[in-house]
Amino acid sequence: MWGATGYTGYELVRILLRHPDAELVFLAAKIDQDTPIAEIFPVLGGRTDLVCRVDAEPPQLDIALLALPHTVSVMFAPKLLSSGVKVVDLSADYRLRDPADYEKWYKTPHGDIGNLPSAVYGLPEAFRARIKDASLIANPGCYPTAAILGVAPLLGGGMKVNGVIVDAKTGVSGGGRNANMAFHFPECNESVKAYKIGVHQHEPEIREILGDLRGCDVDVLFVPHLVPMDRGICSTCYVSLDTAAAENDVYEIYEKRYADEPFVRVRRDIPSTKDVVETNFCDIAVRSRDKTAIVVSCIDNLVKGAAGQAIQNMNIMFGVPEETGLL
Amino acid sequence: MWGATGYTGYELVRILLRHPDAELVFLAAKIDQDTPIAEIFPVLGGRTDLVCRVDAEPPQLDIALLALPHTVSVMFAPKLLSSGVKVVDLSADYRLRDPADYEKWYKTPHGDIGNLPSAVYGLPEAFRARIKDASLIANPGCYPTAAILGVAPLLGGGMKVNGVIVDAKTGVSGGGRNANMAFHFPECNESVKAYKIGVHQHEPEIREILGDLRGCDVDVLFVPHLVPMDRGICSTCYVSLDTAAAENDVYEIYEKRYADEPFVRVRRDIPSTKDVVETNFCDIAVRSRDKTAIVVSCIDNLVKGAAGQAIQNMNIMFGVPEETGLL
Amino acid sequence: MWGATGYTGYELVRILLRHPDAELVFLAAKIDQDTPIAEIFPVLGGRTDLVCRVDAEPPQLDIALLALPHTVSVMFAPKLLSSGVKVVDLSADYRLRDPADYEKWYKTPHGDIGNLPSAVYGLPEAFRARIKDASLIANPGCYPTAAILGVAPLLGGGMKVNGVIVDAKTGVSGGGRNANMAFHFPECNESVKAYKIGVHQHEPEIREILGDLRGCDVDVLFVPHLVPMDRGICSTCYVSLDTAAAENDVYEIYEKRYADEPFVRVRRDIPSTKDVVETNFCDIAVRSRDKTAIVVSCIDNLVKGAAGQAIQNMNIMFGVPEETGLL
Amino acid sequence: MWGATGYTGYELVRILLRHPDAELVFLAAKIDQDTPIAEIFPVLGGRTDLVCRVDAEPPQLDIALLALPHTVSVMFAPKLLSSGVKVVDLSADYRLRDPADYEKWYKTPHGDIGNLPSAVYGLPEAFRARIKDASLIANPGCYPTAAILGVAPLLGGGMKVNGVIVDAKTGVSGGGRNANMAFHFPECNESVKAYKIGVHQHEPEIREILGDLRGCDVDVLFVPHLVPMDRGICSTCYVSLDTAAAENDVYEIYEKRYADEPFVRVRRDIPSTKDVVETNFCDIAVRSRDKTAIVVSCIDNLVKGAAGQAIQNMNIMFGVPEETGLL
Repeated sequence: MWGATGYTGYELVRILLRHPDAELVFLAAKIDQDTPIAEIFPVLGGRTDLVCRVDAEPPQLDIALLALPHTVSVMFAPKLLSSGVKVVDLSADYRLRDPADYEKWYKTPHGDIGNLPSAVYGLPEAFRARIKDASLIANPGCYPTAAILGVAPLLGGGMKVNGVIVDAKTGVSGGGRNANMAFHFPECNESVKAYKIGVHQHEPEIREILGDLRGCDVDVLFVPHLVPMDRGICSTCYVSLDTAAAENDVYEIYEKRYADEPFVRVRRDIPSTKDVVETNFCDIAVRSRDKTAIVVSCIDNLVKGAAGQAIQNMNIMFGVPEETGLL
Repeated sequence: MWGATGYTGYELVRILLRHPDAELVFLAAKIDQDTPIAEIFPVLGGRTDLVCRVDAEPPQLDIALLALPHTVSVMFAPKLLSSGVKVVDLSADYRLRDPADYEKWYKTPHGDIGNLPSAVYGLPEAFRARIKDASLIANPGCYPTAAILGVAPLLGGGMKVNGVIVDAKTGVSGGGRNANMAFHFPECNESVKAYKIGVHQHEPEIREILGDLRGCDVDVLFVPHLVPMDRGICSTCYVSLDTAAAENDVYEIYEKRYADEPFVRVRRDIPSTKDVVETNFCDIAVRSRDKTAIVVSCIDNLVKGAAGQAIQNMNIMFGVPEETGLL
Repeated sequence: MWGATGYTGYELVRILLRHPDAELVFLAAKIDQDTPIAEIFPVLGGRTDLVCRVDAEPPQLDIALLALPHTVSVMFAPKLLSSGVKVVDLSADYRLRDPADYEKWYKTPHGDIGNLPSAVYGLPEAFRARIKDASLIANPGCYPTAAILGVAPLLGGGMKVNGVIVDAKTGVSGGGRNANMAFHFPECNESVKAYKIGVHQHEPEIREILGDLRGCDVDVLFVPHLVPMDRGICSTCYVSLDTAAAENDVYEIYEKRYADEPFVRVRRDIPSTKDVVETNFCDIAVRSRDKTAIVVSCIDNLVKGAAGQAIQNMNIMFGVPEETGLL
Repeated sequence: MWGATGYTGYELVRILLRHPDAELVFLAAKIDQDTPIAEIFPVLGGRTDLVCRVDAEPPQLDIALLALPHTVSVMFAPKLLSSGVKVVDLSADYRLRDPADYEKWYKTPHGDIGNLPSAVYGLPEAFRARIKDASLIANPGCYPTAAILGVAPLLGGGMKVNGVIVDAKTGVSGGGRNANMAFHFPECNESVKAYKIGVHQHEPEIREILGDLRGCDVDVLFVPHLVPMDRGICSTCYVSLDTAAAENDVYEIYEKRYADEPFVRVRRDIPSTKDVVETNFCDIAVRSRDKTAIVVSCIDNLVKGAAGQAIQNMNIMFGVPEETGLL
């Protein structure tokens, strides 16, 4: 695994140490020198002797998990793929289909246009069949996971969706494991703040996937907020419909859509992020008012929104039961 | 002042102790026995000898501030008003014009229909002139204050508003000073939760006032969220317009509308609740996307959303400068 | 398991659902009616169909875990024991040897003096051999676990201990899952508070066990503090010694004492509670100054301080590897 | 005022804007360019037009407040003093009497040995008379303020103190307004951590002042802890006495010692930091056990522990009532 020193990297290690069918054999990160991962994360002390490497060659691998910043994953993925290693990339590098979109939102040209077309968007609830056969998975962003799972059922049903507003609230770990005034404790504690209104790089990702699921463009407005907690995303989605929808009808669409999904729980009551934190679940509740469906979708940004979903994808790719290591 | 033992009651005491033109002479609350307010709130120790009374008769007063639960204010207001005392009621009792609405949302008949017509909604930025001459002020709810200040400028301008979604996030003090599992620390800490989606009692209040300001009905969907912090409201308002609006045009409408307001700050950057906590300010930023204006409106729920606004109203009623005691 | 609806009850369920060698077959609690545990704790949705019973008879059990309030455990333990079921009691009912002490600190006579002598204090690091053969385990309190593990090594070595001050800081879940003004979010958030200085019921428990380990009385002063977080205990122990001790000598005593312990990590750097939260580990660091050894001991109050330790005891009692289900 | 962009700088501005007898005329800080202070702290928007300067010459001043890092204050103080401006230095630069101590603890030679002897330690409760006539005030550190106020009464009384352990817990603003992994939200949130055990630079400051008050050396062990909140210090002081002391006797010593102090509240119940946050008060409670007095002392680290105390000193220096601007 690459990028072991971030919050997502830690989650991957934590999950994999418990996974009965996977063996974690290699850790790498951009650090000064080879360091036991338990020194970087003391919480792992006594549980693993794995050493995080600076630039050692990996051993023979079945799969590589890249928990790297965008623009860095493309430096590692091509070589791994060409040597037959499956790749789950947790960065944004392979999520947008069109390299021009990537360049527009990430302010840099795409570094691996060759592999881009073969990347499969790793949202099992939407693309399970394709994930099964993929070599390269673009693991979804945290915000898109909550938003897409929250809105997708309405796109496939008989209803016509005119547009979607996603008002999302996230814990601070979403900002990464780097000191930054925006995430300095006394700055963000006891405070809620909207940011990047309509200009967040996860908006095109949500728009593209919702468009894929619907078969044509979907109007998406995405507004993220930072709230003072470690983990969790609560996305409140306002879906504008062509006709009024009874709440129970909407509920049944969701119930039916997710009946067999191991990690989506459609609930009658309204979930809080606490109900999903430290789990791979996405909890969803729906309400309606006239022509607006209101969907609340909660995940742990580091689990279902990142590391847990990556392992779920890995399980699918290797044909082991999807929940393995994730309950 | 009645209702001195709640969070709003405390804020009123705190502000009034500093107010150069007001003298706080009487405190009452539903407690077991007369108790110095500094015993109830140790933070007030050494600052006041005022005793909170159980059922003493108040002395001669110029104004009574009622920080009481709804249905309780109507038990005190009529007698005070009839003896010539001005009243600022911080409960919901006099906010809705139609007693039938009150009964619908508060599940009990209105207890003082006689005084209801004379109540003035105490939002200075909208009704300053009427507040000046009022005897009875219905001090706005915390959520409505943020939402109405956030949306009002668009109703008066040349734009046609089709509907408003208010996605609000509040700190836990909004839930009052009573033990309750929903606000038990380990239940709400590290968690975000939507609640009362479309069925919160502040929705009709927002709808009524926005309707007054526009001159006809406004479609309002209000979705509150509880976030793990003591104070602050961030309302993200999605205003659906008839035509696309340039961000700068929207900004100028707000700039102009609030240019002379001492407690509204229209900002280019996006405010966080931390920028307004412990102040009487409402900070507002606007963005736009096609036919949607996005407005972020932040207040301290206990100050501009309750006690501070009550003092602001009191200042207006007595002709002292509006900022007195509030900066 | 009895007492499934508290925070400790939840932790037991969570751990047991993952435990490969245990099957959780019965849940009971004082609730209004039989309720699926996943309704009580939505986080368990989709993971178990177990129903929490009001007063059903339990099936044939190998072991009963009692996560009950003190005075309630003694109502259940005797019958279970007499029918051959092993019992781990997580309440305080069987922790103090002398029923007179129990009555003094818990303000009520002891309800099961008959079984009290056979109870074994369930701190594996101190009493593993006796736990192996016990039928009744008194699972240690959260504060005592951190304090005793922190101080014990100094009692057995060549050093003479004159007295111990334990300055402990705990998260709010330690106060239980009941609404209470002391744990109302706006009351305890953003605040640190000492409480029950020298009069906390865990002080005699610490004193008794440290006395047992030393072979004579130990002077203990215990001062707990509430800090605004969900979980975790940090006990800073000031151990007064007869002679000055070099820091490295103290460190080596700890290293040696805990070398084979699977759940104690002696560290050179200073642990934070975050390093142990959601784990069964106790992280310890030592410093010294003249005749004072300073020991920092961190645990998760709900895991090593309650549910995790109970499972560790269960594992020992049934001869399965001690870490089973706990990593 | 110099150092306006830190948390203490902000507090000074906030307090001075309300101070009826002081006019804030000059702000300076190490920033890129002259910037309105309300841009640096949006919470000040609409309240002041003051511009924070990079290197402008100050106008004629009566007093300069230096909220600068240590080693920086000594670059500004000498020139100000020599031109007749009184100085309150909030850094550590003038707190330790012996420049060798300064060099030992701050790892750099002292930069203004000339003015050091004339500096008065600005703890009004201990040195009011000297502060009145001083030109240069060394404003106490936050930890020392709480610890010294907590322990001082026992040094002057008839009791003999053998030693003091100060176990202090502080909010994160104590770490300053600079991004740093130790104060990155997801690192320190939901966690308590001891640090710099016995090696914190405030220990010699506490030791020196307690020694001054007692007339001979006092043994001090200082152990600070970081807790997840913005503000507040709770110091639990364990004072070892020569003979056992009845709790009430200890209480009366404190009551008497602080009877006339406007900002010290001796309480029978145990204070929490929330009782003093945003105030200049120090709340103290005492307990005793045999030969140990336990003192809990709470302050707001940014107010009584920094900016508030600086203004209190300023008030004393200029002969205005000590509470002016601070209630």
